[in-house]
Amino acid sequence: MTESLKTEPLKIALAGLGTVGGGVVKLLDANRELITRRAGRPIEVVAINARDRSRDRGFDLNRFDWVDDTTALATRSDVDVVVELIGGSDGPALTLAKATIASGKAFVTANKAMIAHHGLALAQAAQDAGTALKYEAAVAGGIPVIKGLREGAAANVLSQVYGILNGTCNYILTRMEAEGSDFGDVLADAQALGFAEADPSFDVDGVDAAHKLSILASLAFGTRIDFDGVRLGGIRNVLGGDIAQARALGFCVRLVGLAEADASGLFQRVHPCLVPLGHPLAHVQGAMNAVVAEGNFVGRLFFEGRGAGEGPTASAVVADLIDVARGEVGPAFAMPVASLAAPETADAGARRERSYLRFTVADRPGVLAEITAAMRDAGVSIESMIQRGEAPDGGVLLVMTTHEGPARAVVAALERLEGSPSMTGKPMWMPILDV
Amino acid sequence: MTESLKTEPLKIALAGLGTVGGGVVKLLDANRELITRRAGRPIEVVAINARDRSRDRGFDLNRFDWVDDTTALATRSDVDVVVELIGGSDGPALTLAKATIASGKAFVTANKAMIAHHGLALAQAAQDAGTALKYEAAVAGGIPVIKGLREGAAANVLSQVYGILNGTCNYILTRMEAEGSDFGDVLADAQALGFAEADPSFDVDGVDAAHKLSILASLAFGTRIDFDGVRLGGIRNVLGGDIAQARALGFCVRLVGLAEADASGLFQRVHPCLVPLGHPLAHVQGAMNAVVAEGNFVGRLFFEGRGAGEGPTASAVVADLIDVARGEVGPAFAMPVASLAAPETADAGARRERSYLRFTVADRPGVLAEITAAMRDAGVSIESMIQRGEAPDGGVLLVMTTHEGPARAVVAALERLEGSPSMTGKPMWMPILDV
Repeated sequence: MTESLKTEPLKIALAGLGTVGGGVVKLLDANRELITRRAGRPIEVVAINARDRSRDRGFDLNRFDWVDDTTALATRSDVDVVVELIGGSDGPALTLAKATIASGKAFVTANKAMIAHHGLALAQAAQDAGTALKYEAAVAGGIPVIKGLREGAAANVLSQVYGILNGTCNYILTRMEAEGSDFGDVLADAQALGFAEADPSFDVDGVDAAHKLSILASLAFGTRIDFDGVRLGGIRNVLGGDIAQARALGFCVRLVGLAEADASGLFQRVHPCLVPLGHPLAHVQGAMNAVVAEGNFVGRLFFEGRGAGEGPTASAVVADLIDVARGEVGPAFAMPVASLAAPETADAGARRERSYLRFTVADRPGVLAEITAAMRDAGVSIESMIQRGEAPDGGVLLVMTTHEGPARAVVAALERLEGSPSMTGKPMWMPILDV
Repeated sequence: MTESLKTEPLKIALAGLGTVGGGVVKLLDANRELITRRAGRPIEVVAINARDRSRDRGFDLNRFDWVDDTTALATRSDVDVVVELIGGSDGPALTLAKATIASGKAFVTANKAMIAHHGLALAQAAQDAGTALKYEAAVAGGIPVIKGLREGAAANVLSQVYGILNGTCNYILTRMEAEGSDFGDVLADAQALGFAEADPSFDVDGVDAAHKLSILASLAFGTRIDFDGVRLGGIRNVLGGDIAQARALGFCVRLVGLAEADASGLFQRVHPCLVPLGHPLAHVQGAMNAVVAEGNFVGRLFFEGRGAGEGPTASAVVADLIDVARGEVGPAFAMPVASLAAPETADAGARRERSYLRFTVADRPGVLAEITAAMRDAGVSIESMIQRGEAPDGGVLLVMTTHEGPARAVVAALERLEGSPSMTGKPMWMPILDV
């Protein structure tokens, strides 16, 4: 490409003008001069599409060509890149992605669900079409962690990647921690403040974090995305009492997405965990996100920043656009799709770790003997035990930590206790992060 | 480039086989298969040069062509990239850099001093020759912070970039903190353990951190590197008592490299600072490095990892090589050299901040009145004062923090007190990080 061609603007079509789409327009306006210098040429939105043309978004829509048919953006001859900010793993977003790539244009998205479910097929299509698929904004908002793993840590065999991947859950857990309150109260408040959706399931049940984790695992290990292989646990059953007891033991509670790869296969899990107070993840407060990667030469890398919202997500989208403008666009998952390995799913039951167990029990003799017998019979070794505090259901909180042992032993002990009249509620299990 | 050409190995000449050079060879051996998949082709060292051919480096040198003349690496027809790990801002490293770029080959280096002093000239030469200059390993070891600023945060106007850029100083300060010991004792121990050089000046006087800061500032702000504009202060005069008093006030002491750009110009400083205990930099222990960048859309980004050593530095060097193999090699400082601005140096005296001041004074009446009068006359407003603890010289430690005010007022107060018989030693000033 000659220098004169390079000063042509990179022309963008934008599908979706919600919080993030509006943020992209505002960012490109506010930082225009610097972005032009960094990208080597201007980046200009030429066409837009959204559900509602009449809504006030704080900027003049008439500067752009309004397009009613989302998919029509893909074939416009005046567009170099389509940016998809509609959301949803299938539907119009996926149709647009396929059409854009088929027409040989670059495709940039913040859509974690679509990448988790269809990322490999889209990457293969982009590879075949010789164009770019970029999705920095899909994981951990403004933190350049896709780039950090795909390029920054590329020289390393990574053994683990893990982190705090959902700002809503971290906001709720750190507020429960600060206020000593229970999940339901904080969720209602978070919804009122806009930190949680009206239907919070995707966030609080761990699905959103699992989307992101499956993408990070692919980049970290050079494996095919395996969203269905992620073991899922959410934060609905974390009590204020769990957080208080964890703190007394030297831990805080965080929703941790963790992926590991070794000879036994790929292990992926999103679950509330006990994190040692000295660990970098313990300092991650509110709606922040953070990612840790462990490499065989670099050691531990830690990235932290804002995981969502207009500014941070727009920052990641435009970083992708600058890469496209610079022509720095290799394979979406760091290597050709055919080179990605398809590992076995690791046997989760064989994984050795320490556990936190909390029972809500009736306040009567013999309960402790029953529980400890179940542990003994299942081969679970108890490290510490606290019987203190009241559960919301009026029962007594009984908290244990175990020595390191296979997860299946703990599962067996809990199964054995299921339905026992001594239990006033369902037990809570949380792994202890030992890294 | 066709697919078949891409499977040709990327051929490397390596100058310097010390800790980092040896690490690069070991890393390319250990992670060969994964790197080939990620880079799209093998990366192979073909020629090497070092001072001493006979030293045992833990691998067989005979696999490589040994070249006695360093500069001859630059013109070998079987080499695509020269990796320079000799060190030194001038001399053979610079000669090799110029010769490599002049011959149109890519140049990868870990040499912060050379980049700080000659980076712009080398970048211009690389631009003219249409080749790549890459230096991820020059700043913060294994942390991909050059990439993080150059690409990850590229969409943002950054107002600040700061961090812990020298592992030796952080090792010394955090050991002083943990042990309550003084600088000299810990330095001697750090030297014995290999965490500090026999001549520690470059590290403990802040020069090394200033090299790195000047590079980060250029990337962050789109400005020309201005190493001479960095205000320098080292850690030699930090007392164990300073760290104890800072802790009592809610701070720890870190050597912080800080760069800011605004309408008044570019401010760059390396100096021991008081860091609030809740700030991410306060958790950075031992020889770790960390960098914070504040962007107008992304907010605060935080990167942490190992700042030096064989593995982390080799990780960064090979990340650059993978970028070169992938063809992802834009301008060295994110934009053409001619586009880099040449800002005024900000008036450091006008900068408003809070300060920590420590005096070692004779234990007699009137000293406090003398000091507070000097503060009053210079217009410095005192926020808190502690007179407690003994200085190593037998004097009393008198510690103050000031309200926010212009730095020149504090300088004037200290000048006024200079030579006063009440002072048993030189006062220590440290800014308080208020970000």
